[in-house]
Amino acid sequence: MTLHAVERLQEADVIFYGRIVGAEVLELARRDAERVFLGKHVGSHSWPQERINQLILAEVLKGRRMVRLKSGDPTIFGRASEEIKAAMAAGVPVELVPGVIAASVTASALGQSLTERGVANTLVLATGTGHGKDPMPDCTRLSGPGTTTEFYMSVGQAVRISEPIIRQGLPAQALVKIAVNVSKSSQRLLTTEVERLAETVARQTVKGCSVCF
Amino acid sequence: MTLHAVERLQEADVIFYGRIVGAEVLELARRDAERVFLGKHVGSHSWPQERINQLILAEVLKGRRMVRLKSGDPTIFGRASEEIKAAMAAGVPVELVPGVIAASVTASALGQSLTERGVANTLVLATGTGHGKDPMPDCTRLSGPGTTTEFYMSVGQAVRISEPIIRQGLPAQALVKIAVNVSKSSQRLLTTEVERLAETVARQTVKGCSVCF
Repeated sequence: MTLHAVERLQEADVIFYGRIVGAEVLELARRDAERVFLGKHVGSHSWPQERINQLILAEVLKGRRMVRLKSGDPTIFGRASEEIKAAMAAGVPVELVPGVIAASVTASALGQSLTERGVANTLVLATGTGHGKDPMPDCTRLSGPGTTTEFYMSVGQAVRISEPIIRQGLPAQALVKIAVNVSKSSQRLLTTEVERLAETVARQTVKGCSVCF
Repeated sequence: MTLHAVERLQEADVIFYGRIVGAEVLELARRDAERVFLGKHVGSHSWPQERINQLILAEVLKGRRMVRLKSGDPTIFGRASEEIKAAMAAGVPVELVPGVIAASVTASALGQSLTERGVANTLVLATGTGHGKDPMPDCTRLSGPGTTTEFYMSVGQAVRISEPIIRQGLPAQALVKIAVNVSKSSQRLLTTEVERLAETVARQTVKGCSVCF
């Protein structure tokens, strides 16, 4: 959490947040701020995006200062575009507050750099989950010597990621790291071989928001 | 700056920092902490990495709490690997504190997402400057539909980046954004066409740490 984000959080009259946001973050807000949970409760559906847009705009148009709290950085796999566009279309001023991406938190926890002179001059962040019929990122184009590749939210797609990469020539025994629930108390860091990625994900019951690289 | 980083900074007895770190960041440290500038003074050479490693270790082995302050995130183009390895080899415990990457700061300043459902499912961060004889990243492999590509520290390499991308099929009039001195008071955000990238960089006297995407 950045100083900038804490400052904005403490100015908020109303805070909209989802499932990934931890309780310790909400505690940084003013006691009298209204907190609205937009996530999915167990056994129910998540809110439609259109409904979230309307709710947010209704609060702002009442003259309240609103914070939409996201985990990580809002511009990188933050799924913030729809809300930003809805606010801009209504003439509501929006400030994006940059945050720390899961890749950085994971690498710091592992004590290793994602780029390194003479080893990796490129970092690729790809989503491992498509929306509806969106195609998967082109794994073979995105992986290669000199490149560190991370797939976000990728546990359900382990086979669709590992098979083309092995076909492209990555040794089946190359090591893959799996970071689960990054920066939460339930954080786990696992290592496996690329050919055993799907099996490891299943056996370790890895779920939810995870990064494989 | 994250709360975590401020906490560590305030615990430090000695702080090593380089040219990119702003004065306002150093002001967050304790008044009695020793501040050591490792950057290049105008007209002189920068310190050799080996000398920096020795200096850092000497302070830690005296029992002082040391912070090595970097701009951005230490694991992504932070050039921290050599110092981390030297500390680990000497048995000195190291904590990496994740930070906000320049790409996030830039995107937030522009008010736009770097990834977006159905538009860009992949973000590529590549260095635009090789070390000595290191090859440049493979621009043609890294750019393509569905991908947002950023080149860090790339102003000196504008032609080496733009020419292969145009040859690969990107329209010469496609827009490129240039972010200069991100998150500093001298921050500038420029937009140009990819075929005019080198000319714009030269005309606008863009120097130092910049991101093109």
